[in-house]
Amino acid sequence: MFYHVDQLQYNAKPSRPDAVYAKKLQEILGGQFGEISVALQYMFQGWNFRGEEKYRDLLLATGTEEMAHVEMLATMIARLLDNAPIGDQEAAAKDPVIGAVLGGMNPQHVIVSGLGAMPADSVGNPWTAAYINASGNLLADFRLNLTSESQGRLQAVRLYEMTTDPGVKDMLSFLIARDTMHQNQWYAAICELEEKENIVVPSTFPRALEKQEVAYDYYDLSGGTASKAGRWASGPSMDGLGEFKYYHNPKPFGKIPKLRPAPPYVHNTMLPKDPHMPPHMM
Amino acid sequence: MFYHVDQLQYNAKPSRPDAVYAKKLQEILGGQFGEISVALQYMFQGWNFRGEEKYRDLLLATGTEEMAHVEMLATMIARLLDNAPIGDQEAAAKDPVIGAVLGGMNPQHVIVSGLGAMPADSVGNPWTAAYINASGNLLADFRLNLTSESQGRLQAVRLYEMTTDPGVKDMLSFLIARDTMHQNQWYAAICELEEKENIVVPSTFPRALEKQEVAYDYYDLSGGTASKAGRWASGPSMDGLGEFKYYHNPKPFGKIPKLRPAPPYVHNTMLPKDPHMPPHMM
Amino acid sequence: MFYHVDQLQYNAKPSRPDAVYAKKLQEILGGQFGEISVALQYMFQGWNFRGEEKYRDLLLATGTEEMAHVEMLATMIARLLDNAPIGDQEAAAKDPVIGAVLGGMNPQHVIVSGLGAMPADSVGNPWTAAYINASGNLLADFRLNLTSESQGRLQAVRLYEMTTDPGVKDMLSFLIARDTMHQNQWYAAICELEEKENIVVPSTFPRALEKQEVAYDYYDLSGGTASKAGRWASGPSMDGLGEFKYYHNPKPFGKIPKLRPAPPYVHNTMLPKDPHMPPHMM
Amino acid sequence: MFYHVDQLQYNAKPSRPDAVYAKKLQEILGGQFGEISVALQYMFQGWNFRGEEKYRDLLLATGTEEMAHVEMLATMIARLLDNAPIGDQEAAAKDPVIGAVLGGMNPQHVIVSGLGAMPADSVGNPWTAAYINASGNLLADFRLNLTSESQGRLQAVRLYEMTTDPGVKDMLSFLIARDTMHQNQWYAAICELEEKENIVVPSTFPRALEKQEVAYDYYDLSGGTASKAGRWASGPSMDGLGEFKYYHNPKPFGKIPKLRPAPPYVHNTMLPKDPHMPPHMM
Amino acid sequence: MFYHVDQLQYNAKPSRPDAVYAKKLQEILGGQFGEISVALQYMFQGWNFRGEEKYRDLLLATGTEEMAHVEMLATMIARLLDNAPIGDQEAAAKDPVIGAVLGGMNPQHVIVSGLGAMPADSVGNPWTAAYINASGNLLADFRLNLTSESQGRLQAVRLYEMTTDPGVKDMLSFLIARDTMHQNQWYAAICELEEKENIVVPSTFPRALEKQEVAYDYYDLSGGTASKAGRWASGPSMDGLGEFKYYHNPKPFGKIPKLRPAPPYVHNTMLPKDPHMPPHMM
Amino acid sequence: MFYHVDQLQYNAKPSRPDAVYAKKLQEILGGQFGEISVALQYMFQGWNFRGEEKYRDLLLATGTEEMAHVEMLATMIARLLDNAPIGDQEAAAKDPVIGAVLGGMNPQHVIVSGLGAMPADSVGNPWTAAYINASGNLLADFRLNLTSESQGRLQAVRLYEMTTDPGVKDMLSFLIARDTMHQNQWYAAICELEEKENIVVPSTFPRALEKQEVAYDYYDLSGGTASKAGRWASGPSMDGLGEFKYYHNPKPFGKIPKLRPAPPYVHNTMLPKDPHMPPHMM
Repeated sequence: MFYHVDQLQYNAKPSRPDAVYAKKLQEILGGQFGEISVALQYMFQGWNFRGEEKYRDLLLATGTEEMAHVEMLATMIARLLDNAPIGDQEAAAKDPVIGAVLGGMNPQHVIVSGLGAMPADSVGNPWTAAYINASGNLLADFRLNLTSESQGRLQAVRLYEMTTDPGVKDMLSFLIARDTMHQNQWYAAICELEEKENIVVPSTFPRALEKQEVAYDYYDLSGGTASKAGRWASGPSMDGLGEFKYYHNPKPFGKIPKLRPAPPYVHNTMLPKDPHMPPHMM
Repeated sequence: MFYHVDQLQYNAKPSRPDAVYAKKLQEILGGQFGEISVALQYMFQGWNFRGEEKYRDLLLATGTEEMAHVEMLATMIARLLDNAPIGDQEAAAKDPVIGAVLGGMNPQHVIVSGLGAMPADSVGNPWTAAYINASGNLLADFRLNLTSESQGRLQAVRLYEMTTDPGVKDMLSFLIARDTMHQNQWYAAICELEEKENIVVPSTFPRALEKQEVAYDYYDLSGGTASKAGRWASGPSMDGLGEFKYYHNPKPFGKIPKLRPAPPYVHNTMLPKDPHMPPHMM
Repeated sequence: MFYHVDQLQYNAKPSRPDAVYAKKLQEILGGQFGEISVALQYMFQGWNFRGEEKYRDLLLATGTEEMAHVEMLATMIARLLDNAPIGDQEAAAKDPVIGAVLGGMNPQHVIVSGLGAMPADSVGNPWTAAYINASGNLLADFRLNLTSESQGRLQAVRLYEMTTDPGVKDMLSFLIARDTMHQNQWYAAICELEEKENIVVPSTFPRALEKQEVAYDYYDLSGGTASKAGRWASGPSMDGLGEFKYYHNPKPFGKIPKLRPAPPYVHNTMLPKDPHMPPHMM
Repeated sequence: MFYHVDQLQYNAKPSRPDAVYAKKLQEILGGQFGEISVALQYMFQGWNFRGEEKYRDLLLATGTEEMAHVEMLATMIARLLDNAPIGDQEAAAKDPVIGAVLGGMNPQHVIVSGLGAMPADSVGNPWTAAYINASGNLLADFRLNLTSESQGRLQAVRLYEMTTDPGVKDMLSFLIARDTMHQNQWYAAICELEEKENIVVPSTFPRALEKQEVAYDYYDLSGGTASKAGRWASGPSMDGLGEFKYYHNPKPFGKIPKLRPAPPYVHNTMLPKDPHMPPHMM
Repeated sequence: MFYHVDQLQYNAKPSRPDAVYAKKLQEILGGQFGEISVALQYMFQGWNFRGEEKYRDLLLATGTEEMAHVEMLATMIARLLDNAPIGDQEAAAKDPVIGAVLGGMNPQHVIVSGLGAMPADSVGNPWTAAYINASGNLLADFRLNLTSESQGRLQAVRLYEMTTDPGVKDMLSFLIARDTMHQNQWYAAICELEEKENIVVPSTFPRALEKQEVAYDYYDLSGGTASKAGRWASGPSMDGLGEFKYYHNPKPFGKIPKLRPAPPYVHNTMLPKDPHMPPHMM
Repeated sequence: MFYHVDQLQYNAKPSRPDAVYAKKLQEILGGQFGEISVALQYMFQGWNFRGEEKYRDLLLATGTEEMAHVEMLATMIARLLDNAPIGDQEAAAKDPVIGAVLGGMNPQHVIVSGLGAMPADSVGNPWTAAYINASGNLLADFRLNLTSESQGRLQAVRLYEMTTDPGVKDMLSFLIARDTMHQNQWYAAICELEEKENIVVPSTFPRALEKQEVAYDYYDLSGGTASKAGRWASGPSMDGLGEFKYYHNPKPFGKIPKLRPAPPYVHNTMLPKDPHMPPHMM
């Protein structure tokens, strides 16, 4: 169960309105790796987890913090939209500043949300749960979480480079620092699990059941051989159970597939001389 | 540029048709972490990459292999659908086997694809590029790739448990082994990059610009303190630049936000005594 | 900012596992009018609101409660999935109970979430922010909220009718009661606003600027005249500013539209004798 | 069954082309609360309705009118796009007016639709049926309809503020007036139903089956107590069956959830000393 | 502008309820090539068309008929859902007929629509405008229309094979016949345009501007040479302006692409010795 | 199985960066009729095809070429984004060229992809498999393919008109020529099939089973009679089996539908005096 307090986790106040930047900032609120994604991803992973208490707590605690980041970004975006201009593009073109603002704004920030934040990304795609996952396997999920924090911090850093507003930069410096922590945190949890299990997910599938002959082969199916120099193409495998081998343009193992004809009741293209062919076609 | 050969990378032939399993198998063809996802994700990462040749090759070579996996799964699904029944559910209920098949099939496998595979997941959601990413930052992207192979292998293993068909199990044992390799491969590439950079993505953002005071704090915003026992709550941080600290239910740093009133031209709810209030409302 | 406690707002424990019902229950977790929808809708409305404190609190308090409902439903669904069967449909068909379960389950509950809840509806569509809205106009938004609680309670009641499990019914009886409160609550808030403003949203647009001649006409563009008997077809209008009038199959006010030809650079279908027609076509 | 006449319901002719405004106007054609939404929503409600003729007629008559509004908006947008410029942004930058137009246009209005309207919103999201609902319960649906007309009129009014074109304003003044009527109309129908049933949807669920102890409690789960002042926190409930009560930060009723371990065949994270742990991990 | 009459264009009455078939029938109502798709596609093409009156009429007349087909299918689906069972799967498993029905139904037909049709396909994906197009070029659009009627009739025929209900078959025989007409109709219109223009769309782009050397080459980039036997690999081209030529596994014309390094402000992966590398990494 | 070579099929090098054009060019990479669509559409059609080898080869060979086009466009877009500006819109407004670029760019090209191409269209919608189809019926599918190449070439031609960059025009002239070939190719394959079967898809459904009385009627349900002049309104039908007939505003064949009341357990709106009405409502 949740409780909300009125204060923001950290301040979210720009030095001046900037409706164009508001549009861009939506990316880390409602985009693929935005704060809605991590908040709901961590919570679902926590709610579904069927094991040690400390991991469940880790997930729910962090998910709860991410909801505070959604709140900060929503507040910042609403303030960046203060008194956003809405006039004629043509008239505005006489004042290049207003013209540039009008051209670069998200029109839904006026028409749909009345100068408020939206659960959408920087081009206006509504947030979708297709972005997130909770698989029940912690190592798989913690890797996704480390990824989300890596992509998320990268996007926050790019947005930091795209503004000169000290208030915005202050808030981003907080979010970027928290992403530093969260990358460290999932990294720590991953190390713990990898030590106990193995690096290959899931660790519980008996290796004898996979086609072990191809489990450490690197298949270079692209033109050159530059990738032969990589760590992945020779030496012991990272899981300690095999040896990497390099193959350039390996041959297929399989046969040429030949599908059976479709039954007549699906009305696919008929083969010549098909006994089901209707009279008018013979 | 690409060339196609007629042979499959590995055989894809079930021992008998099974239209219900065909529906389930769609998950690793056209689902969030299916083969279409990894094929296009690696290729876009490769095409966009602006650096060392060996990484570009690694990405394009692996993406090209994943297209062969899409092909194998599509072929397997078409064969599992051979002569799938299409009749009345009610009539079928007299034969429990046919009844169970009809109830568990994806109806689009008959109506839309005429007994062929679809670019969709196991419940019929069409594949969407919202699943994938190519950020231009290799460490961020390789972590996503390791995640995709982890979730993908997990799903393939679950599907392996859900069938007794030797032909299907044979193909899955190949795909599972290739996922073992691909997890090893991205793991190796990640290690290489983490050694050169640091574990925090992006490594190029000056740490002095982030709010360093909060960069290693673990905020336990959930009820108990079970997560205090984790590696993430004490000791040196994983990036070697800080020390983890644990805080239970930390206070907000920020203020209570107060937004400015909206301008009248957006027609949001008006405040009492708003001078813009129209005559009929005063 | 948010805090989480470990206890659920109300218990969420079924009397026995039921993987098929787990699939159905997803509707009020991740469907159009499910708990994710109301949680995020109320919060975005609260964060964006630029007016009286009491409304902002109302929105954030209720949104925070809805997050607890998401948690309860996720927990219930995970428990309904305990030890869900995963075997062959055909083998299962010999045991009609297992056969019915396998046919009616959501396969992603095994393959994707490992027996956990998903942020999706009862047929597997991932939750999308396209379901929700925060317009900045409270009367418009409170009407949406009353609607969401009406549709949500209706769906919860239907789900109540679809199970005999006392544990599930107990949890639903709590959620249904909270929906009773929330319908009452938004209704109360709507009444307050309608008294101050008027029933027509937005109340701030000068009526003189709308085409007042047609503002109270009921146009019966369907076959019969049964709808003439309704309150909407005669008598004073609900906003007290007009008189309803009934028109059967009213004539168009407008002209037949005739669009100008397209410029040649968009390569639309050309008109005969178009001077831009290229030589090879003349 | 439907018949079409060539005339528009009302004129839809701008005074001059304005490709940037065409992009914005798409919102009320193909957005969440645009005319496609109401047209199809009312029709599906009508086709599915299993009761009194006058409601069915009301729904189909109004849905049929909304199709005429889709037509008017499509025509207006095509005309606003007359001879839209398509040249180089850079070259255009020399003429600020053309530059502003090019920057603010929807590029699909040239590339995809050849200067025609699209079934999409103002940022280009294609219309989706996820926006609409027909539940079979009229009170639930009429509340959705009143909401749609409220949000729709709000958006039309905002678009009215964003242009100075007399032709566009004329058409919008018609649509806004019709939205006035449609808000009045659904309001009237709602009153009729609320009188017969009760305000809580669905009215047919026996109140004794819901957890009546919590059916009129207001839970203030947000920081302050400002919302205590609202009508929803004290006094008789709006449905006349209870008394509102106010609780600040109420305690949970439920227990701490503890999920059972997952069966080994789903390969979730294993607990320590799990008997199913494979040999290589012990 | 539109008018609706109460009668259906053709009867839509099943001989008995069949909730499982109702789910399947949704495909041609709200699927990719269902009646909503053709209705809106033809209307948008008509509203956007900037040319000869007879084509505009053709599009709007046919789009108007398709709305009547949406209505027929919605009515049929509602009737197929009459008194659909909603009980326990497990209890139902004792009666195999009810069990099969419950397992094969769309749960949203109860929970969401209350035994009514939905604007969705046979697996529950909501209809999306991403399915349709109106390009402004009639030949391109008529080809899309012929395609839609071809795929649509194919799906209707498959659904005809999937039922034994005389009432359903009667309605489908009407829809299939109308699809016969509509295929004939678009075919006729296409012939007219191809005679005036040429078969290649758009016909107005000067051929001298395309890379004519490759405009009639067939590139066989797949394994065997079976496709050499096709009409597309030799002989005069269908547009009468060239000669087909066959090439097996042709060489690339282009160079190996080498992208420039990214500027430091996007924080992509850095090259070794990049002067922008921050101090802590050197 | 596939092999990749490093060279592009044709060069993809602009004469200068142009971040605004990069956004527009995304349409034919990741839009409805972009290269991802045709690549995956042809491959799925090939993998699912259950008939003559030459058609399977045709599909897979062409799909493989389209993957090379995806690669060319991705490369071109990355180059158009070289050193794209990212600064303040307001500052930029002082330099109208930079201002115009910033306003017209896709912000995700910086924030999400780090100056790389995305699998999305020109307004940022992610590519979705809902765009494509593989039905198992070749004539239906080849018509879709001809359509895709028609719409695709139209869009490429429009993009050709929207730039003055010789490098971009060179690449487009190649893609446009290949679309010429592909239109010719599918046209040739269609002619072959139409000769063998008939023009109506599917040709295998016995005509006696469709409602033949209406199979050649043209129903003019729109206002005027302009469409009576078309080839579709009189003369022998295109399939040679009937005679076109013209009807202006034809009467309905069907009855007024009357649905049965809903069972009480779905809690739809109740009819007056419904015996299931609960006590508190009587």
